[in-house]
Amino acid sequence: MDDDQATADAHTGDARSDAPEASYQIRPIGWIESPLLDPAEAPKQGNLGAPDAWLVLDPTVREAARGLAVGTDIIVLTWLHRARRDVLVTHPGGVVTRPERGVFSTRSPARPNPVGIHRATVLAIQGDRLRVGPIEAIDGTPVIDIKSALPTDPP
Amino acid sequence: MDDDQATADAHTGDARSDAPEASYQIRPIGWIESPLLDPAEAPKQGNLGAPDAWLVLDPTVREAARGLAVGTDIIVLTWLHRARRDVLVTHPGGVVTRPERGVFSTRSPARPNPVGIHRATVLAIQGDRLRVGPIEAIDGTPVIDIKSALPTDPP
Repeated sequence: MDDDQATADAHTGDARSDAPEASYQIRPIGWIESPLLDPAEAPKQGNLGAPDAWLVLDPTVREAARGLAVGTDIIVLTWLHRARRDVLVTHPGGVVTRPERGVFSTRSPARPNPVGIHRATVLAIQGDRLRVGPIEAIDGTPVIDIKSALPTDPP
Repeated sequence: MDDDQATADAHTGDARSDAPEASYQIRPIGWIESPLLDPAEAPKQGNLGAPDAWLVLDPTVREAARGLAVGTDIIVLTWLHRARRDVLVTHPGGVVTRPERGVFSTRSPARPNPVGIHRATVLAIQGDRLRVGPIEAIDGTPVIDIKSALPTDPP
């Protein structure tokens, strides 16, 4: 485990960019504008009846979206900002009659680093606003990354 | 854009857990131990001849792995700690003769928040050490999340 070493590096101000660190700072590259306002009303996956939404890019990363076009299939990574980070075990699907499992063997949003994965299609582009869908992220969800989908990525 | 509001919240110490913030802190939940030592020698995707590796869990999140078993297909999210975060456009595949594209329309590791996505299978479990593969992450790569793979996730 490199944790002690990384902490030591932080204390000594070691700036080697190739050494792992104890923590990393994520800054959103955009936000979701969606009619979904409440996590309780959001489908658990995008292919389970999720709506389309706007992905509003931070203007400082505008250039990174060059090459995205209507019809492009993308993977959107979000930060599930309303998820609990102190939960290690959960009832799968939120069904309390199912035995508890570790969150790493589930798709629960509650987990130490609540990153959401969403496959969606670019439906329209208006400046820094990308219309994408379907996507089950709720309104106001921070977007942390966009990647082009590979042919082998999920439908 | 909620950026100004989030910054204002941070300044006033507003602790509402449902408001987006300007940045989030990711703490690794484990690390990769791999024979791959150099990003230049790593395949670009796990299904392109990547080796197996050990995923060493931080003991503080041990309970979150309950339910993972040999044969379980998982999605591993990593923090590509050696990737540049200040790159917004790149030559796809690193081939300089190909026209530059925004990193959000590529799978380049260089991007504002360098999160890697890897589908792998749990091959063995020894305490807090999970043997997983194939996976193209290099030795020392921080792991930030593990999710159970869905049937529709990529092979």
